[in-house]
Order: sequence, then structure tokens, then C-alpha cells
Amino acid sequence: MSLDPALSARLKRNADGLVCAVVVDHATSDVLMVAWMNDEALEKTLTTRRGTYYSRSRQELWVKGETSGHVQHVREVRLDCDGDTVLVRVDQTGPACHTNTRTCFDTDERLLLADDRG
Amino acid sequence: MSLDPALSARLKRNADGLVCAVVVDHATSDVLMVAWMNDEALEKTLTTRRGTYYSRSRQELWVKGETSGHVQHVREVRLDCDGDTVLVRVDQTGPACHTNTRTCFDTDERLLLADDRG
Repeated sequence: MSLDPALSARLKRNADGLVCAVVVDHATSDVLMVAWMNDEALEKTLTTRRGTYYSRSRQELWVKGETSGHVQHVREVRLDCDGDTVLVRVDQTGPACHTNTRTCFDTDERLLLADDRG
Repeated sequence: MSLDPALSARLKRNADGLVCAVVVDHATSDVLMVAWMNDEALEKTLTTRRGTYYSRSRQELWVKGETSGHVQHVREVRLDCDGDTVLVRVDQTGPACHTNTRTCFDTDERLLLADDRG
């Protein structure tokens, strides 16, 4: 299968043919991770309902959780106003981050704290 | 001012010297928009607490809401596990999207519905 032509026409891909994917926990609305999709990854995400992305370093498709078991059941996909980003709402099994934290933003790398409000 | 060298060393910029910024409503956790930051935009965001980005089309810095009045007070900034994305939590004044919707994902471009769960 290939991507629906009407959808394909709405995508604004970057120079590498990719759109940005922001992945959100469907239950908590926390941002879990950011990844990239080519047309095939988006098509597979929509048809299989498994979060599927394109690895820029390995230059290949990857199904999230294929090796770790930390799969994503995709509940909703939305395209943004200018077609270069998709918002993917998922039920995440296990930690979303390869470092085994729940999200990719759960490091101690917080640059500015909410409590700092001046 | 320039970016803190310790922070600068943690950033993994793309070929254009940018990191991805996912902007979230601090009150609702909704993803409002996705934009890009160069070092200067990140430094200004952290020091002024106004959401400040880099426009790839105009190739210049822009302070969100500078013309529309739809400014962002930045509450929290986090770096992700591999340093190529920041998560920015903001208090958003008015609509975040230039199309005047609350978020950039409030179009009718929903590709897959939650209710479709099969």
C-alpha cells in the first residue's frame, strides 16, 4: 500500500522527505518522544496502528518497540496547519524512551523551572 | 549574552544548526505548535521567558506574538534524551496558531480517529 494521494499532497516534507512526529500519551497527554516519518512510516502507522518511524541515523523504518516490546498502539493522528508535523496519540506499553524513562524528557536536563516564574 | 557553554555542549543541532521545539500549553498539556530554535532563540527564550524561535523560511529570529499579541510566557524548558528537541511549557495568550485556532493541530486534518480503535 502507499499513502493516500490526497494526504500525500497535504504533506510538507523536509529536504530528507520527512515530517516531524510528536508522540503524546493518550491517557496523560504527556509528550513521550519526537521522531520522524517518511511516507511509508506514516502509511504503516495509519494502517497497522503501531507507531512506526524513520530512523535518520540508520536510514531505515523502525517499528517502535519491535525489539524492546515497548510498542505504541496509535489512537489518533492529526496533521498540523502547514503539513510538516503530525501529532500521534498513543497507548504506550512500558517506557517510551530508549533510556528506560517514561518519556524522552524525563532526564534531569531541565533548563528552566516552572517555579522560577519571575 | 550567548548560550551557556555547558548547555550548548549538550545540544545536538541539525544541519541548519537548529533544534526542534515542541510547545505545550502549561495548563492543559495540549501540544500547541512545533517550531525551531537556533542557539540565540533558545538563549532568548530562557532569559526573556518569551517563546522565541527561528523562522526557517524568513531565516530570522521571531518572538511569538510580536505582531499578533499572542505571546507565550515560558514556564518550563526541558531537553530530551539526545539533545535535539526541547519541550517548552508556556502560558499562551490567545490562539497559538497563525490560522487563529487554539493549537496548530485543530484543523479538520485528523487522519485517524480515537474512536476507530479496532
